Amino acid sequence: MLDRGDNLRADPAAIAALAADPAARLLRLDGIDPVLDETGHLVWGGMAEAADGADLILLGLADGRPHFAQHVPGALDAATRSAWIFKAIGMMAPGEAALYGGARSLIDWHERHGFCARCGQPTLVQRAGWGRRCPACEAEHFPRVDPVVIMLAEHEDRVLVGRQPRFPPRRYSALAGFVEPGEALEEAVARELWEEAGIRVRDVRYVASQPWPFPSSLMVACVATAEDDALTIDHTELEDAMWVPRAGVAASMAGAPDAPFLPPPDYAIANTLFRAWLGA
Amino acid sequence: MLDRGDNLRADPAAIAALAADPAARLLRLDGIDPVLDETGHLVWGGMAEAADGADLILLGLADGRPHFAQHVPGALDAATRSAWIFKAIGMMAPGEAALYGGARSLIDWHERHGFCARCGQPTLVQRAGWGRRCPACEAEHFPRVDPVVIMLAEHEDRVLVGRQPRFPPRRYSALAGFVEPGEALEEAVARELWEEAGIRVRDVRYVASQPWPFPSSLMVACVATAEDDALTIDHTELEDAMWVPRAGVAASMAGAPDAPFLPPPDYAIANTLFRAWLGA
Repeated sequence: MLDRGDNLRADPAAIAALAADPAARLLRLDGIDPVLDETGHLVWGGMAEAADGADLILLGLADGRPHFAQHVPGALDAATRSAWIFKAIGMMAPGEAALYGGARSLIDWHERHGFCARCGQPTLVQRAGWGRRCPACEAEHFPRVDPVVIMLAEHEDRVLVGRQPRFPPRRYSALAGFVEPGEALEEAVARELWEEAGIRVRDVRYVASQPWPFPSSLMVACVATAEDDALTIDHTELEDAMWVPRAGVAASMAGAPDAPFLPPPDYAIANTLFRAWLGA
Repeated sequence: MLDRGDNLRADPAAIAALAADPAARLLRLDGIDPVLDETGHLVWGGMAEAADGADLILLGLADGRPHFAQHVPGALDAATRSAWIFKAIGMMAPGEAALYGGARSLIDWHERHGFCARCGQPTLVQRAGWGRRCPACEAEHFPRVDPVVIMLAEHEDRVLVGRQPRFPPRRYSALAGFVEPGEALEEAVARELWEEAGIRVRDVRYVASQPWPFPSSLMVACVATAEDDALTIDHTELEDAMWVPRAGVAASMAGAPDAPFLPPPDYAIANTLFRAWLGA
């Protein structure tokens, strides 16, 4: 298990000593994408692989060895997302997706937050990569984690599934949306289902959570009970939405050829959510 | 119930029409603090009260009337937090604390995010106050919601409580900390309890969530089972921590004079968490 070493981050001398440790390892990346070996493990190099001018990010300590990632300012096109990353996530060894995801979120955040949002001046990395500081106005800035609710509404043993225009053919998933300031998770679930599908819900139940590093979401999966089943679909958000009975969800999750929809991939929390609902 | 009007935000003409509606109301504030009437309700004025140069924030529609708040750039000292706000939260009519909290989080966010974090240039308000846009580099910026876990570890029918140096005398509460990139909620709970108290936990259970607008947290309350009860307190975070048996928690929550600690205030989710644990 990774110890994030949070208590060391404020100590630049301790971080420098970790970076100078011959056992220290640096995450090898292709741009912002992971490099995997043939068994799906992340590939690590030595600290000598750090680029000139790179900022080091302490990911933590594992097996007594410091683990770092690097951010090379200006080296990324943060807007580009390769297709390879979603294939890679499905191949990654358990536990390593979260480690990589944290590194990816931080690198992306540094790339898009080089200036102070309060005063506009250039900022500097601090806290071993877990923050930035403005030398002009002294503001501190911390990496974002954006909570997102993803939810199944249920009604008489059917659940509501929807598809976005960008989904592959026949793919349906759970509805989702960002939590806004001033909302509890339960309120965000109710609002999103009302806005996107026109249904009112009660009894919102938490199911599971998962980080999702595109760029820095925290997915929170819930189930809620719909008051009725009349849909008013917001077509700016969804291409389609429909109620699917339990047998149809089971067939879809089992990959049956005549199933009503193609389910979300295994690594997505929506998949966990469907499985949890089937098992409940 | 407030309809946030999310689907209208991208339509400047619709927002202008709402702002020109004679029934529209503007949240009256004292700096960033709420103004309450004698029954604990938020006080609203007409749109004519909007300051010159103010940016309008659409809070939503209630009873068919548009409800707005305003941000007056540069008029706030965002670093100042009055003592009145915590008294006010305890007095507020149900449902209004969240409405006010959302407005407060947004106003504070605008005040501290006038510049583009990507390129350093001044940004403009968009989406009826729910975002900013950079005219120089076209980056879009959205208000932050920072997830925080707050949790009780339990061990043999006792729970772990701690106090920060800034707490009033005898106050103890649940331990808490920000969720980091790359973590699930459950992992953040386990990490924080390990870092702050030196205990390992299993079986993290979700209890409740609540927005906390200082400046823009989303509190997520959990209970976890501790593997053992030996404490190693991180004194940079906590002044003290201790295990309290069920009877002691009940006495504290009931305000008994000989109770082991003073509990967190009613409006804090930590209070909800203690009550939920006692009721479980």
